[in-house]
Amino acid sequence: MVAVLALVAGAVIGVVGARLGGETATGGGLADLAESQGFTGQQAEAALKTFVPPGEYDDYYMFASGGHSGQIMVYGVPSMRLLKEIPVFTPDAWQGYGYGTDQGNTVLAGGTNADKNATELAWGDAHHPALSETEGDYDGRWIYINDRANGRIAMVDLADFKTKEIVDIPNVSTSHGGVFVTPNTEYAHISSMSPMPTTESGYADLADYNESYRGFSSWMAIDQATGHFDLENSFQIELPPYTQDLADAGKLTSYGWGFINSYNTERAVGGNAEGGDPLETGAIAADFDFLHIINWEKAAEVVEAGNFEVRNGMRVIPLQTAIDEGLLYFAPEPRNPHGVDVSPTGDYIVVSGKLDPNVTVFDFEKIQAAIEAQDFQGTDDYGVPILNFDSVVAGQVEVGVGPLHTQFDAEGNAYTSLFVDSAIAKYTLGPKAGVAEGDAFKLVETIPVHYNIGHLVTAEGDTVAPDGKYMVALNKWSLDRFPNVGTLHPQNFQLIDLDSNPLQILYDSPIGNGEPHYVQMIKTDKLTSRLDVYPPGTDPMTMTTSEFAVAAGDERVERSGNVVDAYISATRSHFTPDILRVTEGDTVNLHITNIETASDATHGFAVPQYNIEASIDPGEVVNISFTATKSGSFAFYCSEFCSALHLEMQGWLLVEPK
Amino acid sequence: MVAVLALVAGAVIGVVGARLGGETATGGGLADLAESQGFTGQQAEAALKTFVPPGEYDDYYMFASGGHSGQIMVYGVPSMRLLKEIPVFTPDAWQGYGYGTDQGNTVLAGGTNADKNATELAWGDAHHPALSETEGDYDGRWIYINDRANGRIAMVDLADFKTKEIVDIPNVSTSHGGVFVTPNTEYAHISSMSPMPTTESGYADLADYNESYRGFSSWMAIDQATGHFDLENSFQIELPPYTQDLADAGKLTSYGWGFINSYNTERAVGGNAEGGDPLETGAIAADFDFLHIINWEKAAEVVEAGNFEVRNGMRVIPLQTAIDEGLLYFAPEPRNPHGVDVSPTGDYIVVSGKLDPNVTVFDFEKIQAAIEAQDFQGTDDYGVPILNFDSVVAGQVEVGVGPLHTQFDAEGNAYTSLFVDSAIAKYTLGPKAGVAEGDAFKLVETIPVHYNIGHLVTAEGDTVAPDGKYMVALNKWSLDRFPNVGTLHPQNFQLIDLDSNPLQILYDSPIGNGEPHYVQMIKTDKLTSRLDVYPPGTDPMTMTTSEFAVAAGDERVERSGNVVDAYISATRSHFTPDILRVTEGDTVNLHITNIETASDATHGFAVPQYNIEASIDPGEVVNISFTATKSGSFAFYCSEFCSALHLEMQGWLLVEPK
Repeated sequence: MVAVLALVAGAVIGVVGARLGGETATGGGLADLAESQGFTGQQAEAALKTFVPPGEYDDYYMFASGGHSGQIMVYGVPSMRLLKEIPVFTPDAWQGYGYGTDQGNTVLAGGTNADKNATELAWGDAHHPALSETEGDYDGRWIYINDRANGRIAMVDLADFKTKEIVDIPNVSTSHGGVFVTPNTEYAHISSMSPMPTTESGYADLADYNESYRGFSSWMAIDQATGHFDLENSFQIELPPYTQDLADAGKLTSYGWGFINSYNTERAVGGNAEGGDPLETGAIAADFDFLHIINWEKAAEVVEAGNFEVRNGMRVIPLQTAIDEGLLYFAPEPRNPHGVDVSPTGDYIVVSGKLDPNVTVFDFEKIQAAIEAQDFQGTDDYGVPILNFDSVVAGQVEVGVGPLHTQFDAEGNAYTSLFVDSAIAKYTLGPKAGVAEGDAFKLVETIPVHYNIGHLVTAEGDTVAPDGKYMVALNKWSLDRFPNVGTLHPQNFQLIDLDSNPLQILYDSPIGNGEPHYVQMIKTDKLTSRLDVYPPGTDPMTMTTSEFAVAAGDERVERSGNVVDAYISATRSHFTPDILRVTEGDTVNLHITNIETASDATHGFAVPQYNIEASIDPGEVVNISFTATKSGSFAFYCSEFCSALHLEMQGWLLVEPK
Repeated sequence: MVAVLALVAGAVIGVVGARLGGETATGGGLADLAESQGFTGQQAEAALKTFVPPGEYDDYYMFASGGHSGQIMVYGVPSMRLLKEIPVFTPDAWQGYGYGTDQGNTVLAGGTNADKNATELAWGDAHHPALSETEGDYDGRWIYINDRANGRIAMVDLADFKTKEIVDIPNVSTSHGGVFVTPNTEYAHISSMSPMPTTESGYADLADYNESYRGFSSWMAIDQATGHFDLENSFQIELPPYTQDLADAGKLTSYGWGFINSYNTERAVGGNAEGGDPLETGAIAADFDFLHIINWEKAAEVVEAGNFEVRNGMRVIPLQTAIDEGLLYFAPEPRNPHGVDVSPTGDYIVVSGKLDPNVTVFDFEKIQAAIEAQDFQGTDDYGVPILNFDSVVAGQVEVGVGPLHTQFDAEGNAYTSLFVDSAIAKYTLGPKAGVAEGDAFKLVETIPVHYNIGHLVTAEGDTVAPDGKYMVALNKWSLDRFPNVGTLHPQNFQLIDLDSNPLQILYDSPIGNGEPHYVQMIKTDKLTSRLDVYPPGTDPMTMTTSEFAVAAGDERVERSGNVVDAYISATRSHFTPDILRVTEGDTVNLHITNIETASDATHGFAVPQYNIEASIDPGEVVNISFTATKSGSFAFYCSEFCSALHLEMQGWLLVEPK
């Protein structure tokens, strides 16, 4: 009977296949094909749900931090295809970022504060991206990301997907997850992770940890026209020497406030070879750490009123001032919290203590009432008032072992990653998220992932308007999920169908070029209208016409003493001029304009033996300066396959011996 | 009637869905789902053909050059998922390659020949990968790749997917596509692209191009135990100053021979701002260029017999010796050829003159006969004998405009990419490939691709045993195929079903992190048994136990004057020791052993402000040396998310001011 049914089905599906456009290639039906592939029904469905046909677009971009690659990766969802890696903190030869061009070199060099660092920084640990927002929703203008290793923050312009600025934050040595933008991108926030000595030398013995080390919450003002950091209007708030960790902005009802988790409020310093405990033991001793609750709107007023100190070039509100002015409060949070995430309406602040099987949901209205009533259970050692735990908590949900991060949908559900359980818990929030009182703060279901999830993301899931639809688990281990690629395994993005009930895994996506931490997912149509071709002669750093641009016919070489300036055009399939004659020791400044106007007509410019490599998009101007230290005949060339005669797009740099 | 059929089909497919494992989630059938997704039947089939279910493995690895990224990318086929990016010529922070560790720094520094280059090279233009072979078939041991920008070649060990060696080839400035391995990996071949002056200064005026510039064919001997380059047993053959381009090894019937295309035999040098023509015009003047036919087996004997000169440390067979000894012959090839590809049996050598609509198929037996008979049509300007074109050609096939590269299947078909037409032509070879005489050298079909294809690959399609099954088009432009990611577009891998008739495109895969040129596709099961965890204390550079390895309990700090050696272990979730006390100006040598034995238990090691970043796989030993130039308290940390208490895996480098 089954065999007969299958035969009938096969025949009929063939007809349905024809109905679907009449282009079936193999003659048989989809179910036959799925069976021949060895798929279960669920797998065949996943194939159809994740496939994006050739030439069609994904529904979402996913912007992923690259972790210690230092970059940002852009994926399409649901296909999970890598659309682009944007170089941020680390040079990238393909895009000519950091290989002799003014753009990359300027951005990278600008990202090293010479007073702070032992050497020029050529990498970063890109951790927590923050898409710019308008009224709490992604607006697709810019994206900010921090360098966990060196306490820096960068801005990427989503007009051309290029990094335009890196700022090395004073008074901050490292920064983990404390990055967010305020709802109208007034500020990009970054906080310190490990506290740093405030001494002039930057050094203090660990015995002086309590007195000499301090954390900082940094509010980097954003220029609304350009997205750049406005250092003059930025400020910091001094914090106790805890490890300030993940953070999020208040929104809607909690607009004007920010929230930072902390751990190691025990102030353990390790010393496992000196008779002490390792930090992992000392830092988990206390049952509670402190959720930092910061009134940034009021802090900005305090700074405007002149109530600050300047430290290492930054306006700082000292800790005591922050306390006195009512800018900073603590709430106890179960031990060693990881994520703090504000719900779409801004009412709930969800905290995961990673050594507590419960998530703890704070209620912003209750926090405000407790502050108003001075409902404190005391202060910490530095005098910061601690709100009464029971007065500010809306509910707790037992979700499983190792809860880390939380995202949201529009139906009042929250999703929390569970590192130790390798799972995601779905549960309800409370009435302020539209959940009936009786259904509030209840576990709905748990879905296993493979393996050891860190962050997770839902579509636009940290905005005021989450989309639901897709969830991605960022799994730190992949073990046996992919074929062998050596001793370093890729991590694993797992795509989950949020519309299925129960939740279903659709796709495993190996991450072969970095170690993502946080990611954000934004609708594709919020970005597809952005820049595709530069106006002729554009300097991407200023997005205005470059003073060094040339048009066809204006190419020239100017010599002044031992300085040679060449104004070069690039077009299919030659550079003009294509012979550059200099003398050993000359300073050589190349100004290259890609005079193409066609979309995708990018050229490269590479010089052998000189470590020079540029990528020049249509309309773009790139400047390259170097000293001709070595004599020889060097065949410079277009390094981007551009045309049938691409290989012939070559010239000669002739460096005559002195 | 159609509607009724559709309803029936829907019901029946539901049953089939259940038959496929009984796990259908949405209740409806696959055809319904495909229709709700808006797919044509062909698209739905492509979804099923390319999907690799979560946790299952792809059939093939595809090793892709990264182009001017300098790296190698490893994909799974048919899913087209990026499994790994292997850093080769360019530093990579994620994998700690070039950020303070001995391994990356040694490999990268070893890749700069100080006599040749103006500065240390920190990038490459990775062009043409060559998987190691045994008897002409991929064996999965090593992969070699050249640096088109700087004339270098690298070896990647496929035991751990790490780059172990880069050699900067003497007498070669640039190298495009002239890389292959001989059938038993006796040699990895690399040839020059733009010729280089043989003068001591490396400089010669372009007026002296004919006399002073020369090309070279380099035969890098391979140590069969380690895969490393054996420089003592390597040699070069001097060539005229043409642009030597793509190359391939003879196999089976043509074993012992190699083939190199050339262009710009006109020896044009450009000069478009000096009253001359651009190179793209001067280099296409002649109707024919020269296929270089080299007897490498005999050349090795000539070198063994001592008939060579040493130039810049390399054994060189001078051009006249190569002619005299019968090592080098030319055959005319239609103008500006790109690919030269040897058919699976070794009988046919397929050449694409990119300005000729025909592919030209040479017959190795005819070549041998013509050499034997001295059937020459003269010599070139340097005295190299030119075989009579008509005597050595088996056939020509008109394939379309802009033919570039050719791959093969096992059925006697060849596939040639057409850059200008944006298409691939499928056509038959001749009787020696098993094709009936009457069917030989005929166009079968042409499939459009999107857009502007460079290379292409079929599964194991350049070996003695091609698999057919899949073909990938490496399209240099993508234009409108993907959502906007700024002014630089990704390139596009298009996956094509070789089993469908006519050929069908299955998938568009954006390339977001480089610009691949050639790629090779190897069966997954040829590599899955390779190394997953290092034996304890392994130095990956030697694949033996490191003298700096420590076991748990042996960790220590040794001080001698101002040199500090710390022997550190890493395990979840601490380093031991976790406090390092040094004085400003000290030389600090860190020897870190990852003492984990579990697969995937990689740790990182990053030092803020010092630009130090390592990735340490389980069992691996990494050495880091630096001078403590800046005082301060630096919170070093594990940069790879390893455990629930990963964030607590932190220690202190205390650099006391002097």
